[in-house]
Amino acid sequence: MNFRYSLHIIGSIMRVVAALMLFPVLVSVIYSDGCAVWFLAVAAIMFAAGMLPLLLRVADKNIFAREGFFIVAVTWFLISMLGALPFYLSGQIPSYIDAFFETVSGFTTTGASILTDVESMSPSMLFWRSFTHWVGGMGVLVFAFAILSQNGARVSHILRAESPGPTYGKLVSKTKINSQILYGMYILLSVVEFALLVCGGMPAFDAMLNTFGTAGTGGFGIKNTSIGYYNNAYFDYVIGIFMVLFGINFNLYFLLIRRKFSDAVRNEELRWYLGIIAFSTVTIAANILPIYKTIGESIRYAFFQVASIITTTGYATADFGQWPVYSQAVLVALMFVGGCVGSTGGGLKVMRILIMIKTAIKEIRYSLNPRTVSSVVIDKKPIDRSVVTGVSSYLVTFSLLLAVSVLLVSISGRDFMTNVTAVIACLNNIGPGLGEVGPAGNFSSLSALSKVVLSFDMLAGRLEIFPLLAILIPSSWRK
Amino acid sequence: MNFRYSLHIIGSIMRVVAALMLFPVLVSVIYSDGCAVWFLAVAAIMFAAGMLPLLLRVADKNIFAREGFFIVAVTWFLISMLGALPFYLSGQIPSYIDAFFETVSGFTTTGASILTDVESMSPSMLFWRSFTHWVGGMGVLVFAFAILSQNGARVSHILRAESPGPTYGKLVSKTKINSQILYGMYILLSVVEFALLVCGGMPAFDAMLNTFGTAGTGGFGIKNTSIGYYNNAYFDYVIGIFMVLFGINFNLYFLLIRRKFSDAVRNEELRWYLGIIAFSTVTIAANILPIYKTIGESIRYAFFQVASIITTTGYATADFGQWPVYSQAVLVALMFVGGCVGSTGGGLKVMRILIMIKTAIKEIRYSLNPRTVSSVVIDKKPIDRSVVTGVSSYLVTFSLLLAVSVLLVSISGRDFMTNVTAVIACLNNIGPGLGEVGPAGNFSSLSALSKVVLSFDMLAGRLEIFPLLAILIPSSWRK
Repeated sequence: MNFRYSLHIIGSIMRVVAALMLFPVLVSVIYSDGCAVWFLAVAAIMFAAGMLPLLLRVADKNIFAREGFFIVAVTWFLISMLGALPFYLSGQIPSYIDAFFETVSGFTTTGASILTDVESMSPSMLFWRSFTHWVGGMGVLVFAFAILSQNGARVSHILRAESPGPTYGKLVSKTKINSQILYGMYILLSVVEFALLVCGGMPAFDAMLNTFGTAGTGGFGIKNTSIGYYNNAYFDYVIGIFMVLFGINFNLYFLLIRRKFSDAVRNEELRWYLGIIAFSTVTIAANILPIYKTIGESIRYAFFQVASIITTTGYATADFGQWPVYSQAVLVALMFVGGCVGSTGGGLKVMRILIMIKTAIKEIRYSLNPRTVSSVVIDKKPIDRSVVTGVSSYLVTFSLLLAVSVLLVSISGRDFMTNVTAVIACLNNIGPGLGEVGPAGNFSSLSALSKVVLSFDMLAGRLEIFPLLAILIPSSWRK
Repeated sequence: MNFRYSLHIIGSIMRVVAALMLFPVLVSVIYSDGCAVWFLAVAAIMFAAGMLPLLLRVADKNIFAREGFFIVAVTWFLISMLGALPFYLSGQIPSYIDAFFETVSGFTTTGASILTDVESMSPSMLFWRSFTHWVGGMGVLVFAFAILSQNGARVSHILRAESPGPTYGKLVSKTKINSQILYGMYILLSVVEFALLVCGGMPAFDAMLNTFGTAGTGGFGIKNTSIGYYNNAYFDYVIGIFMVLFGINFNLYFLLIRRKFSDAVRNEELRWYLGIIAFSTVTIAANILPIYKTIGESIRYAFFQVASIITTTGYATADFGQWPVYSQAVLVALMFVGGCVGSTGGGLKVMRILIMIKTAIKEIRYSLNPRTVSSVVIDKKPIDRSVVTGVSSYLVTFSLLLAVSVLLVSISGRDFMTNVTAVIACLNNIGPGLGEVGPAGNFSSLSALSKVVLSFDMLAGRLEIFPLLAILIPSSWRK
């Protein structure tokens, strides 16, 4: 384990994140909300901490998967610990565990909140909270590396360990597209959404923060009733459609730029993703028709909630905790599905579900006729056996972590539905669950133990579990 | 597909099951409850149906996995369809779908009931209901073959497809032990439990039916409050301990008979199974101490419920729906664990959980250091890669079926917890879930669609999913 060089890299990322904290300083100055001092102080602490590793001399600059996991796990933990300080020091979130939970929720683009009154927060605090979504969505480390312009080959292990960002999806790793272009598209899409919201009459500050939440598929609302506050069909459809767009594999946009329309449209994962959204929207709209009276309104609310949950954003325009149980069951199922590989969305990802279904059918066929050997085919190409095994192992690990987390959260009481959906919502980086943690509730009343467990789950979900669990296995530290 | 010979085999099994229906006739005569006519009539219909295939001439007597799946799926469906008739024709269960649900629940050893007043049933009906557990527990087909003494090699495909019975566990298929001996032990254990209950003062009829439910890990109570009716610590411990014993791999008893104590005790699955029971009992007992006041009572109720759920029996001495949520969460987790491979218990089985955990650790290690190749080791022997793949595929299929079932059951309304735990309880062949289908409730108020879906789940769980899904794949019918 190359600790020295790993610490060097962690240090350089800390310095970048410290620089990012100057944005909320700017916001604080503009709105004169008096919080600039806290952001400046924490930025200074973070920068100083980021300088410390420079005291270590580095001879060996080789890093492998092990170092990648270590760097990613430690960095995400540290930026969450330090990123929480402005909330805590300013007293706007009085409990440090709450502030930590909120920051983890931000960077991991979960959007689960412990705030009972979001609107009482200072503008710069709200900005920082939503800004963590935008930075987290593109991948903090990937972002830092794009700025630092390090050697791509050397850092690929790190990028892979932090995979759900727009590049380096584990399942599409063969598509090596210039990450600068992908970030260009991420920024472009964000700007377009911002412009459309402002054109529709949304205040610029709100439009920017709501765009951060959409782009990162995060979902922190800046109003107590989330996007429902605006009660505007135009905003609902703009944000809804952009949530869907940010849940699509960014490599497909690259194909569009290169005018390979048919390749993009023929993509099997995309078809399933859009198909699942269409099916869910239509059946939920039918199910909630008695509540919203008109077909138009039912579709509007069904589409927004479906888009929000499948992309793991977590914005709400309706309290689906009050919807009929079929709609709730569909939404909980969508929590597991998640967005496409190579998007900013969390969850298991549509591609994994697709591989799982095809593997199951293949296995049943195999059990009927053990002499036939077939492989799982996606986009007319056979999928490598190691990818299929990886997907199954991921589901296994995911299920075990889910079960253990539910048990730990249940120690502090609450009801069964709240505990189960809180874990599902955090592990898949959604935000709201059902029951007390539903769209009309929040995570504030959970116990400290539960918040720590759920924070771990959010990080595990965002980093696709393995990096976090790896550092808990003692043998990974040995040579 | 060798339809003709498959139908011949199905016919011969039907004739055996028809003969088994003479036992409730006997009970009816003893108790003069006037139901003998229904059992005789249905036995006659079943016997006649079993004769029909003899009209087909069979040239080819070769059968393979495909035929095995077909025979198992069709037979279990037919005996459930026909086995439900006495309940329906006698009017004791007025709805045929309810009667079908109850019979599927019996044969699959689930123990989920639609009866709101069990105690109003005639003795012969209660006998038949519990008797299906005992027959189903050993595997209807295996039982029939044991009687018919067919050629072992030829029928092994059928036995494998009906795997959870005491023989031919998929994971221990190398241990080929004479099935007669295993059945001898099944009967011996049943007789000992019966004797212990009678010695403790339980009426012989009750003792016999409760033993049927224990041996098959079924769990149909013959009182409205299940085993809680007797409110007797001795009965609780006898039944509790026997549930645990019937959840152990029967091959281990064979080792005991051959005086290989150390081999039996060193069995890794057994250690985990007993360890999980001990851990769950102790933590639940601590959790429910405020309800039951004394440590003795808490352990008594915790142990019984833990033993009942992990072995997928489903008897109850307490309404754990009223217990604190940690206890509920542990019990729901145990629903997935299930008994040991080669026992009569359902669920995923301890062995699969063990392989899953070890696979997850192996995969994380592999992702850290891709050059190391290691295998999963159980009982100091490396597990074949195909077994590991099979376990992962099983979990994948299981999860997909669980999700689809919850969606279908949710169409008819009810609450989230009831729907989710009803599916979990049926798919794992437990019996009670939480909410409306908790130990104090029953499945009667569910819609017809839900009952059909749950019946399918019970069969899928009992037959380990693949045979039932296989017949839904069109290509399995082709050459």
